[in-house]
Amino acid sequence: MLNQLKQLFNREDLLAASIGIEREGLRVTPEGKLAMSKHPAVFGDKLKNPYITTDFSESQVEIITPNLDSSQKAYDYLNILYDIVALNIEDEYIWPGSMPCDIPADEHIPIAEYRDCKTCQEARLYREELLKKYGGKKQLISGIHYNFSFEENFIQRLYEAEDTHLSYQLFKDSIYLKMARNYLRYRWLLIYLLGATPVFHKTYATECTRYLNKVDEESFTNPGAVSYRNGECGYKNHTDLYPDYSSVEAYAKSIERFVADGMIQSHKELYSQIRPKAKDNTRLLESLKQEGILYIEVRSIDNNPFEKGGISLEDLEFLHLFMLYLLIKEESKEELSNWQEEATNNQRLIAKGGRLEVWLSKEGKEITKTEWALEILDEMKVMEETLDLNKAGVIDEMVKKVCDPERTYAAKITEISKQKGYLQSQLELAEIYKKDAYANRYKLYGYDDMELSTQILMKEAIKRGIKVEVLDRSDNFIALTQGTHTEYVKQATKTSKDSYMTMLMMENKTVTKKVLEKHQVCVPKGIEVFKGQGLELAVKRYANKPIVVKPKSTNFGKGISIFTQGASEVDIKRALEIGFEHDDTVLIEEFAKGKEYRFLVIGDQVAGVLHRVPANVIGDGAHTITQLVAIKNQDSLRGRGYKTPLEKINLDASSALFLKQSDLDFDYIPAEGEVVYLRENSNISTGGDSIDYTDDIPEYFKEIAVRAAKAVGAKFCGVDMMLEDYRDEKAPYAIIELNFNPAIHIHSYPYKGTERQIAEQVLKVLEFNLESDCN
Amino acid sequence: MLNQLKQLFNREDLLAASIGIEREGLRVTPEGKLAMSKHPAVFGDKLKNPYITTDFSESQVEIITPNLDSSQKAYDYLNILYDIVALNIEDEYIWPGSMPCDIPADEHIPIAEYRDCKTCQEARLYREELLKKYGGKKQLISGIHYNFSFEENFIQRLYEAEDTHLSYQLFKDSIYLKMARNYLRYRWLLIYLLGATPVFHKTYATECTRYLNKVDEESFTNPGAVSYRNGECGYKNHTDLYPDYSSVEAYAKSIERFVADGMIQSHKELYSQIRPKAKDNTRLLESLKQEGILYIEVRSIDNNPFEKGGISLEDLEFLHLFMLYLLIKEESKEELSNWQEEATNNQRLIAKGGRLEVWLSKEGKEITKTEWALEILDEMKVMEETLDLNKAGVIDEMVKKVCDPERTYAAKITEISKQKGYLQSQLELAEIYKKDAYANRYKLYGYDDMELSTQILMKEAIKRGIKVEVLDRSDNFIALTQGTHTEYVKQATKTSKDSYMTMLMMENKTVTKKVLEKHQVCVPKGIEVFKGQGLELAVKRYANKPIVVKPKSTNFGKGISIFTQGASEVDIKRALEIGFEHDDTVLIEEFAKGKEYRFLVIGDQVAGVLHRVPANVIGDGAHTITQLVAIKNQDSLRGRGYKTPLEKINLDASSALFLKQSDLDFDYIPAEGEVVYLRENSNISTGGDSIDYTDDIPEYFKEIAVRAAKAVGAKFCGVDMMLEDYRDEKAPYAIIELNFNPAIHIHSYPYKGTERQIAEQVLKVLEFNLESDCN
Repeated sequence: MLNQLKQLFNREDLLAASIGIEREGLRVTPEGKLAMSKHPAVFGDKLKNPYITTDFSESQVEIITPNLDSSQKAYDYLNILYDIVALNIEDEYIWPGSMPCDIPADEHIPIAEYRDCKTCQEARLYREELLKKYGGKKQLISGIHYNFSFEENFIQRLYEAEDTHLSYQLFKDSIYLKMARNYLRYRWLLIYLLGATPVFHKTYATECTRYLNKVDEESFTNPGAVSYRNGECGYKNHTDLYPDYSSVEAYAKSIERFVADGMIQSHKELYSQIRPKAKDNTRLLESLKQEGILYIEVRSIDNNPFEKGGISLEDLEFLHLFMLYLLIKEESKEELSNWQEEATNNQRLIAKGGRLEVWLSKEGKEITKTEWALEILDEMKVMEETLDLNKAGVIDEMVKKVCDPERTYAAKITEISKQKGYLQSQLELAEIYKKDAYANRYKLYGYDDMELSTQILMKEAIKRGIKVEVLDRSDNFIALTQGTHTEYVKQATKTSKDSYMTMLMMENKTVTKKVLEKHQVCVPKGIEVFKGQGLELAVKRYANKPIVVKPKSTNFGKGISIFTQGASEVDIKRALEIGFEHDDTVLIEEFAKGKEYRFLVIGDQVAGVLHRVPANVIGDGAHTITQLVAIKNQDSLRGRGYKTPLEKINLDASSALFLKQSDLDFDYIPAEGEVVYLRENSNISTGGDSIDYTDDIPEYFKEIAVRAAKAVGAKFCGVDMMLEDYRDEKAPYAIIELNFNPAIHIHSYPYKGTERQIAEQVLKVLEFNLESDCN
Repeated sequence: MLNQLKQLFNREDLLAASIGIEREGLRVTPEGKLAMSKHPAVFGDKLKNPYITTDFSESQVEIITPNLDSSQKAYDYLNILYDIVALNIEDEYIWPGSMPCDIPADEHIPIAEYRDCKTCQEARLYREELLKKYGGKKQLISGIHYNFSFEENFIQRLYEAEDTHLSYQLFKDSIYLKMARNYLRYRWLLIYLLGATPVFHKTYATECTRYLNKVDEESFTNPGAVSYRNGECGYKNHTDLYPDYSSVEAYAKSIERFVADGMIQSHKELYSQIRPKAKDNTRLLESLKQEGILYIEVRSIDNNPFEKGGISLEDLEFLHLFMLYLLIKEESKEELSNWQEEATNNQRLIAKGGRLEVWLSKEGKEITKTEWALEILDEMKVMEETLDLNKAGVIDEMVKKVCDPERTYAAKITEISKQKGYLQSQLELAEIYKKDAYANRYKLYGYDDMELSTQILMKEAIKRGIKVEVLDRSDNFIALTQGTHTEYVKQATKTSKDSYMTMLMMENKTVTKKVLEKHQVCVPKGIEVFKGQGLELAVKRYANKPIVVKPKSTNFGKGISIFTQGASEVDIKRALEIGFEHDDTVLIEEFAKGKEYRFLVIGDQVAGVLHRVPANVIGDGAHTITQLVAIKNQDSLRGRGYKTPLEKINLDASSALFLKQSDLDFDYIPAEGEVVYLRENSNISTGGDSIDYTDDIPEYFKEIAVRAAKAVGAKFCGVDMMLEDYRDEKAPYAIIELNFNPAIHIHSYPYKGTERQIAEQVLKVLEFNLESDCN
């Protein structure tokens, strides 16, 4: 098999896979008690949000990544989902580990609540029956499910290369069933390496009376414990059930027999360590038989409390290699009839005390954990080398864990529980992760090559359970889908809600002005100058007057010259030349006095008003400018290269020069409250501050902004308004530009003032249902 | 006054004016009889179309230009309107002259018909009363009304310079009233110079029994006749009425008295040679008193049958100078009390026999027409020189007409009537104009710097009575207004009906393909290549296969390389480099076989299907290629520089080279029916032919095109489809591109096949009402 793979595929083909992760986690109070609050409404309908839902308990959040084509992407997405949840549960935390926190008695464990509809009722009923049968506490054990499939193309090429009488579907089934059987045989190793539940809280002790050594006042362990979750005290069927993995047909038949015998209610209640999954998992067995196995679900993985998302990237990469190993590893010709019992025993031994040396049973023969583990890892290394997978380091790390049990998560968790107490040690981790989520609240891990505005919108959509698909990454082109409703969005504010004409009107400053004037909106007076026509006349007319010279159709201030104090004829000519580099028509406008404000109109409302000021520091009478800048730059919103809402301030030659004009230098210590500006221009890109004025600006000006947007029919519009005095409705105003692709990140994450929920407004205008309901 | 103007203004200021022209014309049969057919429904509601309506008779078309800022523009627009009417009256013609054609007795003259509504009833009733009072035949006399006003800014500056106690409104009134008085004094000269009704048809003889000399068997004249229309036999009040032009107040009062005395029914019935006009002309007198005079209407001008539009550009320019002359010419301090009678007498003398020397009365003293005419023209020349108006030639031509009456229109018309007969000579002219209208049917005079597609759309809108406003000429940005409904349109097919997202999807070929595939539309298979990523792999994969390499987001075929026979790795690399000059992402696609067809989707229908073939000639066994090209190039649809639907074929070096490959040269005489292609590429810009296939393509493919457009939500979409066999629905197809700004002129005016009414479809989708109604 190994040689066949080597011949058929290159590294890229071999590592092409589809990976999805589900991770459960309990919501807890700052004291480590199970939260009694409701699942946040912002996540919408539990039964419809594909990313964030609840499992058994109302307090048990389940986050589900889409299927992604690499471990890195799955890892990033998992952390995105973690952050979204962490940022929306107010003062609660997500419990990092798999074994529960401080939990109440069964009758006080809140079962997931659903509204009044058929599917909801069923979901609720199912949970109530589980509660009766297994008790509530076991249901609170959380963990990771790892969904894996190869690329279809990979299996197709394998099939073509194989001399088989099987149909393609049966061949594919056979691939995944072999992996499932091998998984069962070798899962003990995965549990040893990734197991992370060596300790449990005293409130769980009712469920686990046999293995009790105190760790601290409130928690228990067992010598060498690795994974209570995967051990005798974990969540499992009352009787060990061994379905037949020889074919899909046999698998289905065996499960149907368990149900007929009353062992389980349905396939869902079979808590096996691995499950073959199909296209339609609600009617799993039928779907498996009809369409075959679509992917396999690995269910043995404990939450790793040292990782925010619950699993490390390295472990995900190891899992991927492990999947390939399960594929190539030949099965023994002389299988024991009770091989599944043997494998289960091995699992339990490792779970209970795997950090100590234990004897396992391999095809009926005894072998130490260490010997067998190294044997498997050796074979994986051969595979890795033969196939040139460039992942040797991942396996080497695991070898170290085998040789030194102190390196396991289980050992480390036991250690911190001893040091700080079980609850405290986990809460500290949860708090770190929550802070990290806040510091990165504008960010979508793994998508930071995309525009911030798009990242923010995607994050909001994911939170709301709206499916996000990236159509063209470099263009920031995405599709958002809720039920049957799809909206395409480019650069966060280019949507189907604005007409093409609306954009064309805003793009053309001449037309914008004509249309605004028709709607009684004030714009600066001015004229058009055409390349090579009537230039002299225009120059004469505007000499020595405060003016703005700008090309008819560019954006982002390109080619614009501003003369606040009037310009000479030579200056105007030069400004026109600059303008003509961008357009054959250039506008000369009277300079509108006052300060510039960006009114962000979304739908028929002003969603935010922003004013920008140049990079600056405010003195405290103690620190130098250099020190004050360093302090200001620590803000997590500030970064470099436009990946953050604000840019770090650079103290460069031009700021030195600017300070010099006021006889200052970088070592100057500004007095308490003294504002020192470091540049002339107020661009965010040179360290400027964005300040939210949404609540300070009178309705009067907001209505004008909305009127301007409506004049061109815009649903998304950045209205740039000059205001002589923003507090005074009678003071003059002038709209100097309408922008058809306004950024949202500047309003979402300003330097000062309220962070505006712009992305939510965008989704509303796109007519997505943001209410939590169940229809 | 002259010196004041010279000091205050430059040439541009002085010639800044607003000029509008109304021209009536009878619809006639090919035999010169008054047409009995209905006013064409395509012109919509007579009471709402601001450009094309009827006057008294259903057969009397009236065309009305908007107010334009130069004589040239007014002239061009008049000819646009003429062409539109001429092209929509089937086998009828527009009678060129002012005096009627072969007309029936009163009872058979069709009065303009209106539908059943209040305004309509009033319009009808008014006409019936006129018929009773003046008879039908006089009503059929047609003519030109010339509406003139100065730029507001011009009058404002005059007002500021004047030391006057008058309010601005009264000052402005005084300006226009002075011009009106002077007009009345000097109008005889205008009638002499522009008069063009020296002959009338025998069917009009009942109205004009006093001046009868036979010209031919069917028409009459009078020695030296200039303008029957402005003479005793013309359309005028039964009694000469002289309103008071001293002030607006006095003017209104005098008219009110005429009405009170029962001389006329309302101000509308006062057939004076000049009228002061106001903002609201339906309630003229009130409006004049409230808002003052807005412009003046000159009513003495006969249709010039030698001009398609009814007046020449030179005459319009003379009229403009004449207006300035009326402004500057000082009035006599000692006015005769009967100066209006004197002026009317002078008019009648000129109208009756002005081509002979006649004695006129100037302030009570006799003076010959020639002496006085030269005196006036001399003063105009002084004015022209003093103000540096650069129009001396216009006046010089008029001097010649004064010195040599044979140069007048009146003389020339008398001459051709004698030679060819009255009816025949006019019909010949009408036929020439109609042919010219057809040859220029795609053209909008005076707007040929704009795109053809936009010209065609504007022309259709004007025809339908939809108001057209050019917002940005260089951008082909227009506003169309019908009642309260305004639509903005850029480049003919960029409208409010497509969403911005629709355009963005089409602009991005990656997204287009993904969306089309989701909608089960076939597109060529392919991959994306990103600048500097995975280039080698892509090149290897597609080497030696028929492919197309194209940038992700350009239009008009820029940066595209096509390899129908497969390309070497080097070629593909080069093609990618070319692509990367236009976009950071380049697509490699399998080459779709067959011929390319452009499906123009408008709304949810295919409005046209077009196929392009390279420049070619078809042999007749007699002419050489050079000769055949010359013949083909005579087609009025062919021009140079993209101002026409097709381009003339150039026999250049590259076509010589192309022919050489088949051992041919320009002197080759192709056999009867032999098609000789002159180039490889099928671009229209290099003389290619456009062939309409709309009726030949099966519905099946049209439905696919509509489905593709709908997939991206497009109302206006150019779908480029490759068809292996257009007749066979089972043959493969592939959509290779969607275009968001499809040209319409290629479908409107193809080389071969039916001319499609695309502009009409555009207006329909823009939700304009194209039905003729009266609500």
